[in-house]
Amino acid sequence: MTFDEAKKAIEGQLKAKPLGVEEIPLLESSNRVLAENITASLDIPPFNRSAVDGYAVRAEDTFGAEENRPVLLKVSGTVNIGELPETTVTKGQAAEIVTGAPIPEGADAVVMIEHTSRNGDEVTVFGAAARDENIMKAGADIKKGKTILRKGQLLGSREIGVLAALGKAKARVYAVPRIAVLSTGPEITEPGMKLPPGKIYDINAYSLSTAVLESGGRPVYLGVFPDNLDELRKALRRALVSSDMVVTSGGVSVGPKDIVPKTLSMLGEPGIILSGIAIKPGKPTTVASVAGKLVFSLPGHPTSALLTFQLFVRPLIQVMSGRKAEKPIEVKAFASMRMFPAKGRRTFIMVKLRQEKPKGLIAEPIPTALSGAITTLAKADGFVEIAEDVQFIDAGEPVTVQLFKTESLLQGN
Amino acid sequence: MTFDEAKKAIEGQLKAKPLGVEEIPLLESSNRVLAENITASLDIPPFNRSAVDGYAVRAEDTFGAEENRPVLLKVSGTVNIGELPETTVTKGQAAEIVTGAPIPEGADAVVMIEHTSRNGDEVTVFGAAARDENIMKAGADIKKGKTILRKGQLLGSREIGVLAALGKAKARVYAVPRIAVLSTGPEITEPGMKLPPGKIYDINAYSLSTAVLESGGRPVYLGVFPDNLDELRKALRRALVSSDMVVTSGGVSVGPKDIVPKTLSMLGEPGIILSGIAIKPGKPTTVASVAGKLVFSLPGHPTSALLTFQLFVRPLIQVMSGRKAEKPIEVKAFASMRMFPAKGRRTFIMVKLRQEKPKGLIAEPIPTALSGAITTLAKADGFVEIAEDVQFIDAGEPVTVQLFKTESLLQGN
Repeated sequence: MTFDEAKKAIEGQLKAKPLGVEEIPLLESSNRVLAENITASLDIPPFNRSAVDGYAVRAEDTFGAEENRPVLLKVSGTVNIGELPETTVTKGQAAEIVTGAPIPEGADAVVMIEHTSRNGDEVTVFGAAARDENIMKAGADIKKGKTILRKGQLLGSREIGVLAALGKAKARVYAVPRIAVLSTGPEITEPGMKLPPGKIYDINAYSLSTAVLESGGRPVYLGVFPDNLDELRKALRRALVSSDMVVTSGGVSVGPKDIVPKTLSMLGEPGIILSGIAIKPGKPTTVASVAGKLVFSLPGHPTSALLTFQLFVRPLIQVMSGRKAEKPIEVKAFASMRMFPAKGRRTFIMVKLRQEKPKGLIAEPIPTALSGAITTLAKADGFVEIAEDVQFIDAGEPVTVQLFKTESLLQGN
Repeated sequence: MTFDEAKKAIEGQLKAKPLGVEEIPLLESSNRVLAENITASLDIPPFNRSAVDGYAVRAEDTFGAEENRPVLLKVSGTVNIGELPETTVTKGQAAEIVTGAPIPEGADAVVMIEHTSRNGDEVTVFGAAARDENIMKAGADIKKGKTILRKGQLLGSREIGVLAALGKAKARVYAVPRIAVLSTGPEITEPGMKLPPGKIYDINAYSLSTAVLESGGRPVYLGVFPDNLDELRKALRRALVSSDMVVTSGGVSVGPKDIVPKTLSMLGEPGIILSGIAIKPGKPTTVASVAGKLVFSLPGHPTSALLTFQLFVRPLIQVMSGRKAEKPIEVKAFASMRMFPAKGRRTFIMVKLRQEKPKGLIAEPIPTALSGAITTLAKADGFVEIAEDVQFIDAGEPVTVQLFKTESLLQGN
C-alpha cells in the first residue's frame, strides 16, 4: 500500500472527528480547544464607564470653555468605582468620578481632572468636552449577542481572558483522547530496572507517550509486554476498553516474531485494515480497527516508531481532540550530498540543518547506524520527504525540510 | 525610568537563575528543562546486535561465496532475542539469529536470511559477508561516557527517548516557579458569580494565570481583592510565603486608588524598586522586591496587563524555570497607516496582520477603544515596538512585528 493510500485508509476508518465535549474550570482550560461558539451574553463593559479620573458633565454645559474663559459647575456628588452612582448630573452640575466608574444619569462626557480646579462644592472647567468624550460606552469592547470566539479555537491567555470578561468560570472544550501506549519485545526492559544481559531498555513507550502529549492527547502508559500472544491480546483488549486508541511498537519485523499483527487479527472486526506501507523507514507499520477504535502497530526501531507516529497517529490525535490537522512547519535548504530514496517507497531522510555562508541553510543526512538508533532522531532537526518516483536528489539541490523541533530553530539556538 | 533601565533593574534584582532542581518520573518530564548534563552510563546498544534476520558467521568462512559458488556451513544453534547466546560460532559454523539478538562469540558478521538456504542442520550461504556486516556494534548509537544531553535542554519526545534508552526512569529537572496571581479593584467580580450593577468581571487573574503557564511557571490563582489596604497587605504577605513571585493587576492608576503601590512599600525591604516606566501602554507598572522575591503590580487594563507581563515577567519566569530567555518570534510587514509613539515613551502598538497582494504582509493597528479592551488583545497577532526617539512610522514603511500567537501564523491559518 502506498503512503497516500495508507493515509487515506486510516483517516477513512476513523471518520476523523472530535471524540466528545466536556465542561471544565476555565483556569484549567489552557491549551484546550473550545467546543462551542461563544456569543456575548452581556455588553463589555456592561455600562458606560469613565476612561479617566475627572468630572462627569453634560457636554453642552462646557461648550466654549477655554483656559481663560472657564466654566463653573456645581459638584452634585461623587461616583465611586464598583457602585451604582448615588448622584445624577443636571444642568450646571458635575459629578466627581474615577476611571472605570459608571457614568451618572444626565452626564454625557467626562472632563479630565487635569483640566479642572476644585474649590469646595464647585469645580472650574478649563476646556470644552465633546459628547461621549472620555467615556467607554457599554458594549464598546464586546457587543452583547456578538459571536466573539469560535468552536475550534485553541484557548490561550487572551481567549481565556475573553471568557472571563463574559463571567464564565467554566469552558466547554473537546475531550482529550486517551491513547494507550505499549512496547513489545522479549529483549525490552523497563527503564529503572536492572538491565539483564542480552536486553535493552525500552525507548518507544516513553518517546511515544510524550509524542501523544505533544499532539494534544493523554497518554496511558502500559509499559513493556513480552512477545506472548495471550498476554498481549489481553493487554490490547483492556487497552481498547480503557482508551480511545492504542499505539504499540515492536514485534512487527519480518522475522519469526511478528506477533503483534497476529494478535491484531484476533481482536475483533473489522481487524487489520493495512499491513505494511511502502515507506522507508516504517515499512512494517500495521493498523487494525476494532469496534471503531484504531490500534497502531509501529516498528520497534525508535526512529521509525516516532516518525510513523508523526506521519499517521499525530494528525488523528489532533482531529480527535478538536484541533485543526496542522500543516508541518517547513524550511527550504540545500542537500549537502546526494540522497537516494528506497526503490518504490516514500522515503524520509533525517537531516540536521546548518547555516553555511554564502549558500544558506544546508540539510545534512544523519547516518542511521543501521536504523536502530535513538540518537539519529535526537540529532535530527527534521526530515526530507522523497517521492516514490524520484531517482535521487543531488548534492546542492534545494529540498524542503519538515521540522521536528520547531522551538530551537525558531528561537535561533 | 526608561524601558531599557526598567528591564535592567528587574533582571538585576533577581540575579536571574533557576530556582531549584527536582527529580521527577521521566514520564512526567515532558516540557520540563533538564538540570544536569547526561553522560551515557552504558553503551547503546549494550552489546553487538544483529541488524537483520539470518545467520551469524565468521566473515572469513564466507569469502568468495557467490550465487553459483555457495558456501556450506553447519548450524551450531539458534540465538534468541533478549537472551545471552547459548551457542558459539567456530570455523565452518553459523548460528541462526534474529534482528536485535546478541552476536554469539566467534561470529563477526551476519548473512541475511534472503541470501541463505537452510537444510536440516546445514545452511547454504550464497554471498560473502564482510567483517561487521549487518552488525550494530555495542555503543554505535551512544558511546558509554559520552555526554549526550545537556543541562538546559527542553525535554520532548526525543530527549525523553534518549533518557529511557539509558535506563533512566527519572529525570533531574529545574523546579517550576510558583507565581501567585491576583486582581485588585472594588469594581472587579469573579467570573461565575452574579454581576452586581456597576461592576465588571475579572479578566486579568485569568489571562495572567494562563500566561504564567505558557511561560513555564505554575500559576497560584488567588482571585480578586477589593482595594482594602489591610486585606491586600495580608494577601500579599501570604502570597510571598507560598510562591516565588507575585503578579497583581489593577490598583495602580494615577487616581485616588493607587493602593497597590502603597501596600508594596509596606511589605519589607528593599521594597519598591521601580514605580512607573516610560512605556505605552503600561506606564503605571510598579515593581517591588521583598526578601529576594519580586512583586509586580501591573496596570488593570487587560491589554496593558498582558503586554507588561510579556515584556517584564515572562522572561523572568523562563529564566527561573531554567529556560533560555527566548527571542520573540518576529515577522516583517508594512505599516497600513501612520503610527505615532507616545512622546518620550517606548510605545507598543497592537496590530493585526493580513496578506495583501502584491505588497505582502500588512500590519494594521487595532483601535484601542480607550485601552480598556480585552478584544484589542484577542484580535492582535502581535505588536510593533516604536523607540522613544522615533517621530512616527509612516504608512507603507517596513515594520517588525513581534508575534503573540505563534501557532496560528506558523500553521498558516
